[in-house]
Amino acid sequence: MKAYIISIGTELTMGELVDTNAPYIASKLPQLGINLLGISQVGDDIESLNRALSSAIESADIVFTTGGLGPTEDDLTRESVAYMLNEDTYVDPESLEVLKTRFMQRNLPMPEGNLKQATLIKSARSIKNVRGTAPGWWVNKDGKNLILMPGPPSEMTGMWADEIEPKLVKLNIGNITVTRNLKTFGVGEGVLNERIAHLFHIETASLGMYAQAQGVQLRIRATASTETQAYNIIDPIEKEIRSLVGEYIWGSDNELLEEQLGIKLKDNNLTLSTMESCTGGLLAHTITQVTGSSAYFKGGYVTYATEIKAIMGVNQHIIDKYGVISPEVAGNMAQAIKDYMGTDIGIGITGIAGGNPIEEQRPGVVHIGICIKSDTAVITREYPTQRHAVKQRAVTQALLELWSRLR
Amino acid sequence: MKAYIISIGTELTMGELVDTNAPYIASKLPQLGINLLGISQVGDDIESLNRALSSAIESADIVFTTGGLGPTEDDLTRESVAYMLNEDTYVDPESLEVLKTRFMQRNLPMPEGNLKQATLIKSARSIKNVRGTAPGWWVNKDGKNLILMPGPPSEMTGMWADEIEPKLVKLNIGNITVTRNLKTFGVGEGVLNERIAHLFHIETASLGMYAQAQGVQLRIRATASTETQAYNIIDPIEKEIRSLVGEYIWGSDNELLEEQLGIKLKDNNLTLSTMESCTGGLLAHTITQVTGSSAYFKGGYVTYATEIKAIMGVNQHIIDKYGVISPEVAGNMAQAIKDYMGTDIGIGITGIAGGNPIEEQRPGVVHIGICIKSDTAVITREYPTQRHAVKQRAVTQALLELWSRLR
Repeated sequence: MKAYIISIGTELTMGELVDTNAPYIASKLPQLGINLLGISQVGDDIESLNRALSSAIESADIVFTTGGLGPTEDDLTRESVAYMLNEDTYVDPESLEVLKTRFMQRNLPMPEGNLKQATLIKSARSIKNVRGTAPGWWVNKDGKNLILMPGPPSEMTGMWADEIEPKLVKLNIGNITVTRNLKTFGVGEGVLNERIAHLFHIETASLGMYAQAQGVQLRIRATASTETQAYNIIDPIEKEIRSLVGEYIWGSDNELLEEQLGIKLKDNNLTLSTMESCTGGLLAHTITQVTGSSAYFKGGYVTYATEIKAIMGVNQHIIDKYGVISPEVAGNMAQAIKDYMGTDIGIGITGIAGGNPIEEQRPGVVHIGICIKSDTAVITREYPTQRHAVKQRAVTQALLELWSRLR
Repeated sequence: MKAYIISIGTELTMGELVDTNAPYIASKLPQLGINLLGISQVGDDIESLNRALSSAIESADIVFTTGGLGPTEDDLTRESVAYMLNEDTYVDPESLEVLKTRFMQRNLPMPEGNLKQATLIKSARSIKNVRGTAPGWWVNKDGKNLILMPGPPSEMTGMWADEIEPKLVKLNIGNITVTRNLKTFGVGEGVLNERIAHLFHIETASLGMYAQAQGVQLRIRATASTETQAYNIIDPIEKEIRSLVGEYIWGSDNELLEEQLGIKLKDNNLTLSTMESCTGGLLAHTITQVTGSSAYFKGGYVTYATEIKAIMGVNQHIIDKYGVISPEVAGNMAQAIKDYMGTDIGIGITGIAGGNPIEEQRPGVVHIGICIKSDTAVITREYPTQRHAVKQRAVTQALLELWSRLR
């Protein structure tokens, strides 16, 4: 069964709001056996809406819309659907009762504009919305399903979970698609492609590759009549990929690097502290995004000004001899913070996130020191110089390096 | 002139990634006089891609695509465009030279797959990409423009700013819509509305108001045949708004809070240091996102474990008496870090980002201490408890409070 999603609202086509509804729905479809053809965002004008709806209905068996169900003049989704299906709208007494009760409970008069939220057409039935005033529509006509949901994400996801997904599951529509994402770091798409190119032509599964801030991701997807069968297709392919490029893979699916690292630290009963220069606190911030991180993360310094490094226990002779942006200082930062905080592990980062060269070194150069007990290692990298990207990559690299040293 | 945007990648139709490229482009079009008909996301399969492209070309004069320009088998945008326009692809010697140089500079062999990133068709010219291996295509045929950009947001936005927007400006396409956003802090919608209500009924411009995490924003929008004329409509309205509620306005349009604060600190020749507990480094990270922040930001502590706070100079008696999550400790943290780092200003944050209550205080409680020279103030807030949201809001609040104290 083929589906299409239409997200409606001028705030989307003005770029004022990022559409999170469509990705939410899209992520739910594969395991329901529904194949998504595409997604569109259109503004609140009837022509664009009619065009998008007619094109979606033409190619898909099931069309999901979000937005345009409000009480105002520019909420036009019901009107467009009624027009496309050549049906008249009428006020549904039951929906009107629900709406009136809702306003009564809040001691508010019901504005006349809200009346249209209680309308239906003959081939639609109303979908309950306990989080807002706009009920949805489930239209079934000529073998096509049109499912109209409200735009506010909390109302949409609530309606999806309560009313839409349970009914889609029962339709038992077709084959189930499952996906495994393998996350790599330190390797480009070209090299990965060279090593695993032959797997792109397997008939039973499809392989994809895409670059993200934390590295290139490999996606294996298989379709079968049950979830177990689909994973039976994926498993040997995953095994082969791991045998070919396993050294670059740090996690899979929804695993986060900072969580994986946290698990390793807890399992090994190790504590961690940090001293950061160019990453300016992003390393500590990332580590502390994990619930329960206080069990292993004790604290850190952000030594942004050079003179602060020495105050913080970094050896002034090393700074003078090698320069503040040097592998030697990164290593010494890692040792100094580990000793000062009394932790098992210290990470030190020094480099240039952006702006002008310092000590004749180019922006984008980062040195990462990792001190585990008495053992210190330093990694040096040069990243393309966009301030935020340099900070992010340096932090990812530091976490990955520590992760690989603990494995 | 009418436009359509197509974002390409199965990660989008699988809901694995939220499309931020299309909103970015969409937000740039009004001031270029380009009217956006809609946006679509399609997966990496040639049929969907062909269908989306042909439908977009049919209704729009200018079609923007992002994604599908990589070196792998499932990068199909060039192939689809060549097929739709019935043209053959060929290797462009100049693009190939750039690509080869790029790999040479990194001391990497160029994988064969990357060769297709140097291809062109007769009606396309190559668009430079200094941030990645995939150049774009600018196709001009039968009065239609097709602009192909890479998918990674940093490459896309970089190419847009360097190569696309400057050329679109020259096309001088139609009526221009410009927007001015005024960002306020410390005032509610009700008060703002009372003071500026009469401006909502101006015919030449439209005024909007919406609440955001960083405070209420006022939006003025005007349309005219040139940008200058549109700004001539906006300017007097902005002036009047500033005369009425100027004391609450901290910035406009794309100005970031951390940048505005940085300007104030530099102008007043003030230096800053931080001590963070529950925000775990996010405050320092946000401050150091600004190029040149080392001029005023000296450094910070992340005192995640309670025992570390005392080591870092926080008064143990205050901790014992009031508890570590208290206004008194926040104030003392601000003073301690200011004194230790020898700066003019110290910020201290203590609270509970998520997880379980501590010292019988609920998760979401945050105390922010701000010490300017000898003057210390503490603000206490309780936020809804989602770990990341609490950290983010506490940091925003801290920056806004400091900004308003310096104004």
